[in-house]
Amino acid sequence: MTEQTKRSGRRRGSGESPQTREAILAAALGAFEEKGYGGTTIRGVATAAGVDPALVMHFFGSKDGLFDAAIRGPGMPLRRLREVIDAGPPAELGERLIRRYLSLWDDPAAAPRLRAVMQAATSAPAAGQILRDFMVAEILRPLAEHLGGDDGETRAVLVASQMIGVALTRYLLHVEPMTALSTEQVTAALGPTVQRYLTGDLTI
Amino acid sequence: MTEQTKRSGRRRGSGESPQTREAILAAALGAFEEKGYGGTTIRGVATAAGVDPALVMHFFGSKDGLFDAAIRGPGMPLRRLREVIDAGPPAELGERLIRRYLSLWDDPAAAPRLRAVMQAATSAPAAGQILRDFMVAEILRPLAEHLGGDDGETRAVLVASQMIGVALTRYLLHVEPMTALSTEQVTAALGPTVQRYLTGDLTI
Repeated sequence: MTEQTKRSGRRRGSGESPQTREAILAAALGAFEEKGYGGTTIRGVATAAGVDPALVMHFFGSKDGLFDAAIRGPGMPLRRLREVIDAGPPAELGERLIRRYLSLWDDPAAAPRLRAVMQAATSAPAAGQILRDFMVAEILRPLAEHLGGDDGETRAVLVASQMIGVALTRYLLHVEPMTALSTEQVTAALGPTVQRYLTGDLTI
Repeated sequence: MTEQTKRSGRRRGSGESPQTREAILAAALGAFEEKGYGGTTIRGVATAAGVDPALVMHFFGSKDGLFDAAIRGPGMPLRRLREVIDAGPPAELGERLIRRYLSLWDDPAAAPRLRAVMQAATSAPAAGQILRDFMVAEILRPLAEHLGGDDGETRAVLVASQMIGVALTRYLLHVEPMTALSTEQVTAALGPTVQRYLTGDLTI
């Protein structure tokens, strides 16, 4: 990575464009999806993106930095959960969140990225912390603010616990009959749970 | 692993006892906990157990075989979930399951093993399949049979989705304020959810 001979074939100066940064991020996501967090290296990502490893380090600093940028990037599917918060009656927010969450996991363009993020976050503590900070800042805190009250953050994390659990059983572990249920059936089963966490009497 | 020279220092024949098998399994669990599934090797487990790698292969066949045996072993904490199924009124089964599940994750002797199993199952598809098969055979099917009816298996997997989700947010990702809630608070919040999945009107 620091040997001049290995750099010589690529021009570092010409690569410092937003396009190059995006190309590196796309390569990183591909690597996280295919090789897992442990199997992804700065060098491998650089090779896949056709750039010098030093340029990857320049942009992202480390593998954790790459993962952080990949999660925070505009293409991160989980950002689309926020869109439904205000998109209808509060009494139907639970159902809207479940439908949107399932639609992301059922989207062939989004699912590999979600799977890679979940796998990385559960297998590497640093990646888990990055996902947690993203979830809190970008989804749970906005949801808590929308709910208001002293217990908004508690309600938001309870919602997260049910939604992450359904992703794990349905899309990662493929536990039957969870996989066989239709979107409508999962929504009917989980809707009252999530709605109670959002607006019901928790008595805790 | 196949070179006679590497074997010569250890006596294979003398190690084929149940005690040796248990020592290998304990070493494997330690490796899964410390190095993750990807970082665990047959050779490393053999070294930690003080036996020849060929003996590990003889007993377990592969890394997946080691993981399968570690999950199915008598010390697997998740087995203890079954003990509460019949241990009280059906209307309190949800609460009993949550309390027992939290107590396993809060037990310093059990938590590292649970964490290792979850990490392996989410990071390696083969390990995920092994955990899924164990869950279905040892926990979800017995629970479904206890519940009876056509939808027992659906009810059991819905329970699993909420319990796995709370483990992930509370014990693996450490999402606040889930981590700050007491056992009583988590039980009060999740109890009605799990009880509804077990015995409520699901209308799905």
